[in-house]
Amino acid sequence: MVTSSICTIGDEILIGQIVDTNSSHFARALNGIGIRVTRMVSFGDDRQVIISSLERELRENSIVIVTGGLGPTKDDITKPALAELSGSRGSRLDSGQLEIIHRILSSRGLDMLDVNKAQAMVPDTCEVIPNRLGTAPIMVFRFGAERFGHECTLYSLPGVPFEATGAIPDIIEDIKGHYPTDDICHKTIMTYGLPESLLAKKIEAWESSLPENIHLAYLPNPLTGVRLRLSIYGGEKSRETSQIEEQLVKLREILGDHIYAEEDTNLQETVGRLLKESGKTMSCAESCTGGMISHLITSVPGSSEYYLGSVTSYANSVKENVLGVPSGIIEKYGAVSSECVAKMAEGVRRITGSDYSVATSGIAGPGGGTPEKPVGLVWIGVSTPDRTETFSFVYKNDRKRNIERFAASALDILRKEIEKDLNI
Amino acid sequence: MVTSSICTIGDEILIGQIVDTNSSHFARALNGIGIRVTRMVSFGDDRQVIISSLERELRENSIVIVTGGLGPTKDDITKPALAELSGSRGSRLDSGQLEIIHRILSSRGLDMLDVNKAQAMVPDTCEVIPNRLGTAPIMVFRFGAERFGHECTLYSLPGVPFEATGAIPDIIEDIKGHYPTDDICHKTIMTYGLPESLLAKKIEAWESSLPENIHLAYLPNPLTGVRLRLSIYGGEKSRETSQIEEQLVKLREILGDHIYAEEDTNLQETVGRLLKESGKTMSCAESCTGGMISHLITSVPGSSEYYLGSVTSYANSVKENVLGVPSGIIEKYGAVSSECVAKMAEGVRRITGSDYSVATSGIAGPGGGTPEKPVGLVWIGVSTPDRTETFSFVYKNDRKRNIERFAASALDILRKEIEKDLNI
Repeated sequence: MVTSSICTIGDEILIGQIVDTNSSHFARALNGIGIRVTRMVSFGDDRQVIISSLERELRENSIVIVTGGLGPTKDDITKPALAELSGSRGSRLDSGQLEIIHRILSSRGLDMLDVNKAQAMVPDTCEVIPNRLGTAPIMVFRFGAERFGHECTLYSLPGVPFEATGAIPDIIEDIKGHYPTDDICHKTIMTYGLPESLLAKKIEAWESSLPENIHLAYLPNPLTGVRLRLSIYGGEKSRETSQIEEQLVKLREILGDHIYAEEDTNLQETVGRLLKESGKTMSCAESCTGGMISHLITSVPGSSEYYLGSVTSYANSVKENVLGVPSGIIEKYGAVSSECVAKMAEGVRRITGSDYSVATSGIAGPGGGTPEKPVGLVWIGVSTPDRTETFSFVYKNDRKRNIERFAASALDILRKEIEKDLNI
Repeated sequence: MVTSSICTIGDEILIGQIVDTNSSHFARALNGIGIRVTRMVSFGDDRQVIISSLERELRENSIVIVTGGLGPTKDDITKPALAELSGSRGSRLDSGQLEIIHRILSSRGLDMLDVNKAQAMVPDTCEVIPNRLGTAPIMVFRFGAERFGHECTLYSLPGVPFEATGAIPDIIEDIKGHYPTDDICHKTIMTYGLPESLLAKKIEAWESSLPENIHLAYLPNPLTGVRLRLSIYGGEKSRETSQIEEQLVKLREILGDHIYAEEDTNLQETVGRLLKESGKTMSCAESCTGGMISHLITSVPGSSEYYLGSVTSYANSVKENVLGVPSGIIEKYGAVSSECVAKMAEGVRRITGSDYSVATSGIAGPGGGTPEKPVGLVWIGVSTPDRTETFSFVYKNDRKRNIERFAASALDILRKEIEKDLNI
């Protein structure tokens, strides 16, 4: 099997000022064509470190993807390091990339500066894949077997996520042209509402009866619930598919409506798909989730087809004046109550005219809890054309994580209510 | 200088199903006590790979932080690997962690399962730091100089971000007790509104006149703008501070109100700080940003002090019926227009009773653009007690990035308007 290493260059990663998200995108793309990623490595903007680290990765892998270390203010370290590593004796101006640089700058009304022009200069040992989304070229260095004991390729890309991930199709195309590729069979099952250990217990017998060539992984995430991933490496496609389907029949029986999808997706996409299928619309009224449900829903392209809008009613006055929650309700039961979220859900459905709505009110923390209503408590209301229901949960996390769990739970409740109406 | 490596274990990282955010938090904490992070490495759930990878990191670093590979369904690979690496001959039950496991499960109304109990078993070669936030203990392995050529320590933590980052203070405390630590002088300047290359050009002369011991880094981010980081390693604290202040005087002169803070922060915290200072409140009306501004604002603890709420008016009917945008406005100018965002901003200020408001309407893409109103166009309106102003920008990114830039630009505009009123 062809193996690969994904590297990132940048002091900003090592001091923790930015999180590397590029590697994850590349890993998914490489896996999709049957190339196993053995390692991800980040190291600093230092010529000797770059050279020795990349040499090691090239010795142990056929493909090395490198992001970062390029850019108008960074080129002076990584490019000379790559030139030295590849035994380059000179540079050349890549006219294709120069033209793109020119076009990008003029579309932004900017003049070509020397630093911009210098970006089109590359070591004479590399091929260039044009970077249509930014000014730094994508450099491809191919090494014969004499250099590292086997043929290998290094791809160097800018670190800007938009540009790096935008180049993935071109890189994958290039790899396919030079290496034998394959399909790994992955099947992802999305579950919500069971913590990892409880889920593991529930499917223990099923898991231990899985055929040996099927590998199971648990991937918990507060926004999506626990993903279960079944993988089969290096078999025969049609046989693998039916082998996995056989197992899924049993898994569905065990987990019931904790399973919300059988592909790698999330709750907001699932809610969107259900609403599109039923031709219905939704809205939300958010207090403790502060706009996050709305943000998640609208992160899905085409959400305007089913999403009308929302009210984030952080202040009680907004709950009363905009959503029409009777003031007696908040006085009597408090804003974090079944009664209040029911009125919030009904209110936002009324003012937006949507078919469904979901509402949240809770205490995200760190402050604000009481013994009766602790930090982590959330009330969730859902209103449909023929009913309003409320639910409550208590989570014990920090503010960020509590907000995520509140929002995900609200989406999951909405998902189940829509499924009920669709008889799923 | 004491050096450190940060490792993550997990196939889920190598196949790109999750992004490692823990390493970044640890890197920041280690840097803060003068420990340089030389490398971050991720590798798979494989006993031999875990052992050989960790051996290499321990040979080259004094401190190795490992997250992941632990948990009720994962313990069977990482724990035996750590036992082998450390020459352990047996396990012991850690009663402190067992008690925590018991408490966590009962607070969730769950019974103790065998897999939960097994988590309190650790190799007899390690010390345990109790993990108060989860069931997996934090294991500390200390190696004498005979093992890897120098004294070194391995900290193994669960991968769940909430638990891993929650343990950082304990780990830092332990490191301080065993290694000489130091302060690295970092100064971060937050800028907004200038792309990296233009910013670099603007401060070119200043940058090239910087004293040799000051290192400058550019860290662009769509949500925060470009961070500039000035670093001095290994000097004398008071001298370094005054050396950096001297440079800042000149930098402020050059960048003016593009600088929005002189510490590592973001736009939503800055807006919050300004509102608290002035005792004013805000609200927002979001179309294309779909709740993201509201989500960012409310991610700041204590935001209920100045944030009243928002309306996400995705559908035009919500713009008209909830925010009171006159229907003639949308008919005549369209929803993505100066006129519409002005009315949206005024409308949300009226219905929430806030002092300030900010409104967005634009085309995030991928679909929906026209030659006159292309994908990436956004109109932003800001309304204050004595004026309403509008601004427009065009960004050329994908949906996710466009939404981020729209939201950040809106926050930056609001920030400048509040500063104007405060005479900053």
